[in-house]
Amino acid sequence: MQELTEKGKKAKEVCIHLLRASSELKDKVLITSAENLRKSYQEIINENNLDVNAAVSGGIKGALIDRLTLTKERIYGIAEGLEQIASLDDPVGEVESMWKRPNGLIIGKKRVPIGVIGIIYEARPNVTADVFGLCIKTGNAAVLRGGKEAFRSNKIIVRILRESLYSCGLPPDALQLVENTTRESALAMMKLNQYLDILIPRGGAGLIKTVVENSTVPVIETGVGNCHIFIDETADPEAAESIVINAKTQRPGVCNAAESLLIHTAVAEKLLPGICSALKNKNVEIRGDEEVCRIVPYAVPASEDDWYTEFLDLIISVKIVDNVEEAIAHINKYGSKHSEAIITENYSNSQKFLEEIDAAAVYVNASTRFTDGFMFGFGAEIGISTQKLHARGPMGLKELTTSKYIVYGSGQVR
Amino acid sequence: MQELTEKGKKAKEVCIHLLRASSELKDKVLITSAENLRKSYQEIINENNLDVNAAVSGGIKGALIDRLTLTKERIYGIAEGLEQIASLDDPVGEVESMWKRPNGLIIGKKRVPIGVIGIIYEARPNVTADVFGLCIKTGNAAVLRGGKEAFRSNKIIVRILRESLYSCGLPPDALQLVENTTRESALAMMKLNQYLDILIPRGGAGLIKTVVENSTVPVIETGVGNCHIFIDETADPEAAESIVINAKTQRPGVCNAAESLLIHTAVAEKLLPGICSALKNKNVEIRGDEEVCRIVPYAVPASEDDWYTEFLDLIISVKIVDNVEEAIAHINKYGSKHSEAIITENYSNSQKFLEEIDAAAVYVNASTRFTDGFMFGFGAEIGISTQKLHARGPMGLKELTTSKYIVYGSGQVR
Repeated sequence: MQELTEKGKKAKEVCIHLLRASSELKDKVLITSAENLRKSYQEIINENNLDVNAAVSGGIKGALIDRLTLTKERIYGIAEGLEQIASLDDPVGEVESMWKRPNGLIIGKKRVPIGVIGIIYEARPNVTADVFGLCIKTGNAAVLRGGKEAFRSNKIIVRILRESLYSCGLPPDALQLVENTTRESALAMMKLNQYLDILIPRGGAGLIKTVVENSTVPVIETGVGNCHIFIDETADPEAAESIVINAKTQRPGVCNAAESLLIHTAVAEKLLPGICSALKNKNVEIRGDEEVCRIVPYAVPASEDDWYTEFLDLIISVKIVDNVEEAIAHINKYGSKHSEAIITENYSNSQKFLEEIDAAAVYVNASTRFTDGFMFGFGAEIGISTQKLHARGPMGLKELTTSKYIVYGSGQVR
Repeated sequence: MQELTEKGKKAKEVCIHLLRASSELKDKVLITSAENLRKSYQEIINENNLDVNAAVSGGIKGALIDRLTLTKERIYGIAEGLEQIASLDDPVGEVESMWKRPNGLIIGKKRVPIGVIGIIYEARPNVTADVFGLCIKTGNAAVLRGGKEAFRSNKIIVRILRESLYSCGLPPDALQLVENTTRESALAMMKLNQYLDILIPRGGAGLIKTVVENSTVPVIETGVGNCHIFIDETADPEAAESIVINAKTQRPGVCNAAESLLIHTAVAEKLLPGICSALKNKNVEIRGDEEVCRIVPYAVPASEDDWYTEFLDLIISVKIVDNVEEAIAHINKYGSKHSEAIITENYSNSQKFLEEIDAAAVYVNASTRFTDGFMFGFGAEIGISTQKLHARGPMGLKELTTSKYIVYGSGQVR
């Protein structure tokens, strides 16, 4: 597809300029962009209104419309996000380690930009500026392919950001928007190995699956969180209840929310009624195994599928287990390797859980809701990786860089 | 494909046992395996002879037969390789960093096995034991799909290694060989996302391309090295000549050998005759640009394709450039981002080259032949990555691990 080839080529060509840009200059671009977005907020809202109206007429509803909609407050929030990224340390150029070999060669591992990053995302125009900020800060060019419902919004935001690049003396092609928003353009992007160094899908499970199944460009998979809380025999009852309520209900639509509760058989009878009643007060539907349904009269039977499901909603599956081993086996079977927590006062069980659970983040006595670049102290987040290559868990600025070995010699040969 | 699904499932199931295995136990497996391979060398040679004879009858020749052939010496060498891996530090379990958040959460980044590693390779039976050693040491299960020409050799080696696992108390399914060696089995393996965490192709450019283009399992691409030496105006003439000769001729068939020489116009007339004559004495064919062909009478004209080509042979392309900027631009255009070297005494040019060349390893005043896990001091090597995700450059044991965040709380909620 010609548009993609051309834009990929241009992105590749500007990489050297981004590499040469000082941290000061990159930060100036972000601060200028923030100012320009604020100044143009009415113009952005006008374009966004056209997108929203078309989406509503097209039968799109609810949360999707909410995510598509920009307000003055949201635009100011986006601008503030860019300023926050500007305030972080630039990871590029750091030499993580340097060592001397017996032959006198000095070898250093240096952090460098990845190059060209492709992003495929849905109708969330805030992602446009967010990704721009993260990529520019780390010296990467970005090729964006957003959802067609947000096209007018993306187009004006990208125009403003490109003008900001230009006014600071950096090539505008460091940020490019794919104008063809057909399925074909997304598929073509997934095969653009010649120009894209990596591809990051940002969106729902369907989008991520499509990208993983079709992309030959290396993908960073961000994703699904079927997260569990296991209440062990020795759990502090108050901590257990507050963590379960927090992990399930504080924001049920996000990937680090809990979807399933496992509880040790020795304390199920005692603790489940209180916890489930608290969940019920928050309008959470309980789907339990047979024993849970006996203890909690308003629980409904969980199906096999329920154990695998990321509800992203006020629903929780609940199962009684005999011991920490059964809890670990269940989680490793049904979980999505995102975030898992044990509530326990037993030292050995806490260590066993930390050791044997296969997930990006494993917690003792804390809510799974902390799996997040900001909560981890990274200051920014491009997503939460549930794959094992390159980055696992919350990805901050460092995860948008790669490394290069720099080798200082004095004539060495083999 | 049923065989792959079954083997993938078994591999996944044994991961927990590999995770639990102590470094001592894993090393014991490797040392036992080395002993058993030595003891069974004759049996291995017998099976290998059948493979080699069939390959010769099938019309396979030269280097391919050499790579397929096992001798007592080679088998002992393979065994020694396993012992060397056993002597290295186990990277699993290391907590690289740990920090405390304002809310009291303590977050650690811990190195853990990747899980199940798939390897697709060609008719090189030494890879079978080599990969086994690297995977077991790092707590990973391995599913191997080797070339059909080496099937009998692989089968007996795998049998011996599985027996070694078993005799040490680890599940033999930590190592499995795919018995179906059709193209279909390779393709099915590339789609085995349910069970394989990563896939590493080891072999020639064709194999790697096929895997990159077809795999939905995350791939670590190892690969092509179109490496350059740039002789700057201020290069020490003796160092320049010895580095060029070493990089081109010491082992021309490997990926870190030099394929192209760039030389500053100010010293071309003076240095090229001597260097090219030394290359000619080593039977290297010189393919030059117009000016090179004028200076070096036995040079033949280089085609545009030659600048892109990894010859892996006694051929070198030679080009005269006006300055370091032209050298960098040429390398970034035609290179394969593997290993690149500048020979210079000019400080600014050395820094510019290190900074602006986009490659896994960039050298000042040393041969590109050092890009190698052993030469870098990693003690082992699974390959040299030319991609930018996860690992770039020589990959040692650490690159066969991933990370997991372990979070110690005391009841924190959001």
